[in-house]
Amino acid sequence: MVTRQDCITLDERDGLAEYRHKFTLPEGEIYLDGNSLGAMPSHLPARIQEVVVKEWGNGLIRSWNDAGWIHVPKRISAKVARLIGANADEVTVADSTSVNLYKALATAARLNPDRKVILTELDNFPTDLYIAQGIAELFGLEIRYVESTPEAVLAALDDSICLTMLTHVNYRTGAIYPMAEITAKAHQVGALIVWDLAHSAGAVEVDLNAAEVDLAVGCGYKYLNGGPGAPSFIYVAKRHHQQMRQPLSGWHGHAKPFEFVLDYQPADGMDRMQCGTPPLISMLGLDAALDVFDGVDMHDLRIKSMALCDLFIKLVDEKLSEYDFGLASPRDSAVRGSQVSLTHKQGYAIVQALIARGITGDFRMPNILRFGFTPLYVRYVDVYDTVQAIAEIMVKDEWNQAQFLTKKAVT
Amino acid sequence: MVTRQDCITLDERDGLAEYRHKFTLPEGEIYLDGNSLGAMPSHLPARIQEVVVKEWGNGLIRSWNDAGWIHVPKRISAKVARLIGANADEVTVADSTSVNLYKALATAARLNPDRKVILTELDNFPTDLYIAQGIAELFGLEIRYVESTPEAVLAALDDSICLTMLTHVNYRTGAIYPMAEITAKAHQVGALIVWDLAHSAGAVEVDLNAAEVDLAVGCGYKYLNGGPGAPSFIYVAKRHHQQMRQPLSGWHGHAKPFEFVLDYQPADGMDRMQCGTPPLISMLGLDAALDVFDGVDMHDLRIKSMALCDLFIKLVDEKLSEYDFGLASPRDSAVRGSQVSLTHKQGYAIVQALIARGITGDFRMPNILRFGFTPLYVRYVDVYDTVQAIAEIMVKDEWNQAQFLTKKAVT
Repeated sequence: MVTRQDCITLDERDGLAEYRHKFTLPEGEIYLDGNSLGAMPSHLPARIQEVVVKEWGNGLIRSWNDAGWIHVPKRISAKVARLIGANADEVTVADSTSVNLYKALATAARLNPDRKVILTELDNFPTDLYIAQGIAELFGLEIRYVESTPEAVLAALDDSICLTMLTHVNYRTGAIYPMAEITAKAHQVGALIVWDLAHSAGAVEVDLNAAEVDLAVGCGYKYLNGGPGAPSFIYVAKRHHQQMRQPLSGWHGHAKPFEFVLDYQPADGMDRMQCGTPPLISMLGLDAALDVFDGVDMHDLRIKSMALCDLFIKLVDEKLSEYDFGLASPRDSAVRGSQVSLTHKQGYAIVQALIARGITGDFRMPNILRFGFTPLYVRYVDVYDTVQAIAEIMVKDEWNQAQFLTKKAVT
Repeated sequence: MVTRQDCITLDERDGLAEYRHKFTLPEGEIYLDGNSLGAMPSHLPARIQEVVVKEWGNGLIRSWNDAGWIHVPKRISAKVARLIGANADEVTVADSTSVNLYKALATAARLNPDRKVILTELDNFPTDLYIAQGIAELFGLEIRYVESTPEAVLAALDDSICLTMLTHVNYRTGAIYPMAEITAKAHQVGALIVWDLAHSAGAVEVDLNAAEVDLAVGCGYKYLNGGPGAPSFIYVAKRHHQQMRQPLSGWHGHAKPFEFVLDYQPADGMDRMQCGTPPLISMLGLDAALDVFDGVDMHDLRIKSMALCDLFIKLVDEKLSEYDFGLASPRDSAVRGSQVSLTHKQGYAIVQALIARGITGDFRMPNILRFGFTPLYVRYVDVYDTVQAIAEIMVKDEWNQAQFLTKKAVT
């Protein structure tokens, strides 16, 4: 049996333990929802204050030059690129993940104009499906949905497929799709691939270049800790840069944005994926937040992530075996992201009871309790205390109270 | 001859003078570039700090409910609606102006599917033209460009026009297009109209409902003072809400965004114009900034705006007549926005010399010196001091120095 002291010892030996001090978390809270909204790096308030007071308030329009606002997307892109196995000039940061996915799908559709099918899977993140539906209508494509397994996707890849759109780490179960294998199969049949890295970037090792991925997008506010609604990133492999065209042809994607010529001339490289003026306060938050990753080896981070999740599953096995919990995530850490999802028919109420105890996970329909373990700020002892709390909630029927049973609009 | 003392007296009698104290401007600076980036309302740093530290850092994911993040676009929209003559439920705030224009043009194209021409004018703001070019390619439309006069636009409106896209106040000259007249003519010939209010909202009186405008977009960071890259707004007249469809079909525009169903079902009303997760720190900056307009009567604001611009022109006539300046803006204040543009072959260097003196206007190719007069924080005495400074710069040939003659990348 794992003891609390065992977990304290693991924390003492943890080479990444110091990174927790780079974040500010509410006193006493165990935060296991960094996969929805990352915690706040401690230096963010001062940096954002500087952006607001000094760069905007005092620098005003001059800050486009003097504070280098014009170069911010490039600066951030280099920081993101290292985390996802890309070259800095294959990434840019702009807009929301949904908008970037729209650009990515439109670009892929135009790069492969003779094919008419978008292949995706039924348990993909909803906004991905919605955006694909919008693109399908515009480009006259059909969407083929398959079951949510790598095998089903691989089997469905044939020479009718224009592009495959998949999420690398499933938001609900944390299951990892085999990126290299599926990408290779897609290329074999002449399809392009677009990966959504929303639950991967900053959480698991990603090597887009090694897998020869065509396009990818990802989120700035989950494991990258950029703040609520932080801008998103988009990646396009260099081999497509010459031909790529996206329809959101705004001035920040123009070859000469400030020369104000009549016709749109797409910029070289990833600048072409820009559209309008970026939301600079939010964007500079992400820029600063990424500095937390300075010195972090993504392999070390992945090792800790797997250890945290393995520990959680082991403790669930030990302490919760009599309470009808199921494991919605893969048991094998090699194919599981930085989260573990349990199932329980009272999942919603149990998550609420946990929140009342200062432990934040989240609930996903119909019966999923989702726990994200962000390796930079979650401790082994947090994992222990969480499972212990669930056990207490079950022993005492603590979940069975009116305030926990009533569903709120958003969780 | 107008004296400096006359201007001080005008400031003393100005009913809007107190609003200047709601902004923080650099000591001694005269800021005439609020049409590029509005100045910082003084309460913004504290509010943004609260958003970062309290709502994000402490509230974490709970702030979607507890801090009401989910309702932010609606709250902002009501504040914007009052400034542009719209109902609160005809406006939403999201994304950049370029992205919102893309949605607006796509929506208009789909509402009028049998027509194949986008009508616009050659001196429209470049990103508007670039976005229109992206839409034209996707929807198989042709763009017809006409000269930049209301007469040319009116003459070109015929029954081939699907939609007309115009900017209400020209960014370069400040000339105002007659919104009601052109909109009426567009409707007469069966065309829809999309107005860009980037240089109108918060600066001149706009009554979209009275003019029966179909769609409009506008900017959050110019006269609305929302901060660098603040999100943009989009308006669609209520009569189009049932039929309107835009292609950026992300989850925040879904009827039930958090139920995670398979198919996109557009939300009712303006929520349909949302796409991804908004950049909340930037967006909440705009939300707070708009409170500066509380109690401001837009007619009073317009009267002061016209008076400031008229004073500037009068002083230019009096003090600069021997230096070959031209007036690029209409002399008639009724058809001029909240800016005055001069022309001069040394325009770039003169603007740089002014900036060195702490007076910020901007330069627009090829020869335009642009001065924006934001009525909420620009004083009559600022207008005087600006023209006096230009006169001194011309007398002393102060512009003719190496550091003023060298063009920077962005102005």
